[in-house]
Amino acid sequence: MGEAVPLVVGVDGGGTSTRCLAATMDGEIVARGRAGGANPRSARDPGGNLIRALTEALAALPSPLSPAGVAGGVFGLAGSSESGRRQAGELARGAWRAAGLTGLPVVVPDIVVAFAGGTSAPDGGLLLSGTGAVAARMERRAIAHRYDGYGWLLGDKGSGFWIGRRAVQAALARLEGGGPPTVLTDRVLAALEDTPPGPDGRAAALRAEALIAAVYDHEPARLATLSPVVEAAAREGDPVALAILDEAARRLLATLEAVGPLGPGRPIVLAGSLLTGPTLVAERVRAALPGRDVSYSRDGAAGAAALALRAAWPGDGEDPRAEAAHRRLLAP
Amino acid sequence: MGEAVPLVVGVDGGGTSTRCLAATMDGEIVARGRAGGANPRSARDPGGNLIRALTEALAALPSPLSPAGVAGGVFGLAGSSESGRRQAGELARGAWRAAGLTGLPVVVPDIVVAFAGGTSAPDGGLLLSGTGAVAARMERRAIAHRYDGYGWLLGDKGSGFWIGRRAVQAALARLEGGGPPTVLTDRVLAALEDTPPGPDGRAAALRAEALIAAVYDHEPARLATLSPVVEAAAREGDPVALAILDEAARRLLATLEAVGPLGPGRPIVLAGSLLTGPTLVAERVRAALPGRDVSYSRDGAAGAAALALRAAWPGDGEDPRAEAAHRRLLAP
Repeated sequence: MGEAVPLVVGVDGGGTSTRCLAATMDGEIVARGRAGGANPRSARDPGGNLIRALTEALAALPSPLSPAGVAGGVFGLAGSSESGRRQAGELARGAWRAAGLTGLPVVVPDIVVAFAGGTSAPDGGLLLSGTGAVAARMERRAIAHRYDGYGWLLGDKGSGFWIGRRAVQAALARLEGGGPPTVLTDRVLAALEDTPPGPDGRAAALRAEALIAAVYDHEPARLATLSPVVEAAAREGDPVALAILDEAARRLLATLEAVGPLGPGRPIVLAGSLLTGPTLVAERVRAALPGRDVSYSRDGAAGAAALALRAAWPGDGEDPRAEAAHRRLLAP
Repeated sequence: MGEAVPLVVGVDGGGTSTRCLAATMDGEIVARGRAGGANPRSARDPGGNLIRALTEALAALPSPLSPAGVAGGVFGLAGSSESGRRQAGELARGAWRAAGLTGLPVVVPDIVVAFAGGTSAPDGGLLLSGTGAVAARMERRAIAHRYDGYGWLLGDKGSGFWIGRRAVQAALARLEGGGPPTVLTDRVLAALEDTPPGPDGRAAALRAEALIAAVYDHEPARLATLSPVVEAAAREGDPVALAILDEAARRLLATLEAVGPLGPGRPIVLAGSLLTGPTLVAERVRAALPGRDVSYSRDGAAGAAALALRAAWPGDGEDPRAEAAHRRLLAP
């Protein structure tokens, strides 16, 4: 058997899922793996999910490719404090060893792989809205300035969680505080109680109580599951739902603005399900960025693999072959 | 030994402390007890704390008074859902039995004892701001319409928690988002990290990270402990702190407004540490209610005992002797 074909591995460990992919040095994706969330703060078994996604991808390598060829890997993991980053590093190295790989993987913030998953350019802006929300100004593919991403208790303005919480508050205002009528009142309660929406004989005060109990009986991030409910209501013309999504878009644009001016030619990468999917929030954000070079980051694992490729090619990561491989990785 | 002198017991089980008092039928307070919090949702040992507050008060009865004279009791306990109320009822009855008392105590929402702790009138408004915030329109000493009190995840606008969260957000906006300068940046971090405020050599991004970690490493309600920090900064003229307290007062007044119009002669009871203490929020709320009959509820246990008294006197609770005893209980 000759020398193994060199490969790189990229891993994106998000709040709800972990994606992994392996690619050749010229950016051809050759295998993928997937598992549950790997956010050290919110996932149940982040280490196990990293191992599962990684070993699934390695097992899927087509012959004659083999894990022995893996020349490097990058993990994108949330970790918003020193101890969080230390923990993320330990999880990534543990998964790397458990998968039988040699050498050491590089661990970078999830924001960094999201940006590289949307553009091969080194500088630009990133705006992400999924369960959480964050913006960053990127220089040389590193974070020059970040804003928000503070989690459900302190921020994440314009995120899926934020939208879901607003929907619950609108329902409570309608039930108890004289707020405007909205289809959200019935639908939010049905979604959180997991019952079909329909005639509800309970008095308003009892429905408000049931809604509050349904929220506090689960983890806060669950409210992000309400954002499709708000999207559907807004598309039917519900003014309260539309106002929530309008404000979500405004808040996200303000978060992007807070990371400072981006040069006019610099790309803006949109990431997270609310900005990469066909949502009203994505439409509004896109419409507010006329004339900008906007791209979408739908696969953070591809961004992570691109960073691994750039590190594996000789030079400072700006080798033309690395650039070509990065672009190929991002090609639809 | 003759027949025991009849007594009533009132218990107010709050989020951070439980207060109990025993009173004679004419409203003379004869014993008190105190223990940790008894909110079934947030306290560690609500049942144990109810028992401790109750037995401490009974043990403090001066001779010849004895627990055998206890003719009735009222517990004010949070319980914002059907299951929450059931749980509160079980806790109260368990404490009653554990203290060796006979009969059954009455359990009412904490709001009801707060109102009765501020006025002997049957109808009026209540506005409470402590760790949480809620308003209610009261009729015949029962809740006719309540608004907010939705907890830290969904509402409690203008509460101590809300103020503390705003202070953290102001510090983060200053550290990372170009927000206005404020002494809160240093003081909030020092308070949450439990270090003396002073020169902090760390870069802004590291300080923001430390602040976020300090918030998420504890229970959310801890942010309410920051409200005195905001109060002190506002009194020194810090414009960001002043703006937070101005908005807290506005939000509280909006919450009061949402419970519907109160007849002009009806009293408004202010309750909770932020509205009964010498705070800027209390000043602003009071100033916005000119010409109103405003009173302060500083002891929910007295309100609970007053309700027990009204139930123990013959008639529908509106006996003039019950009224006189209620007023005596509330006398400073």
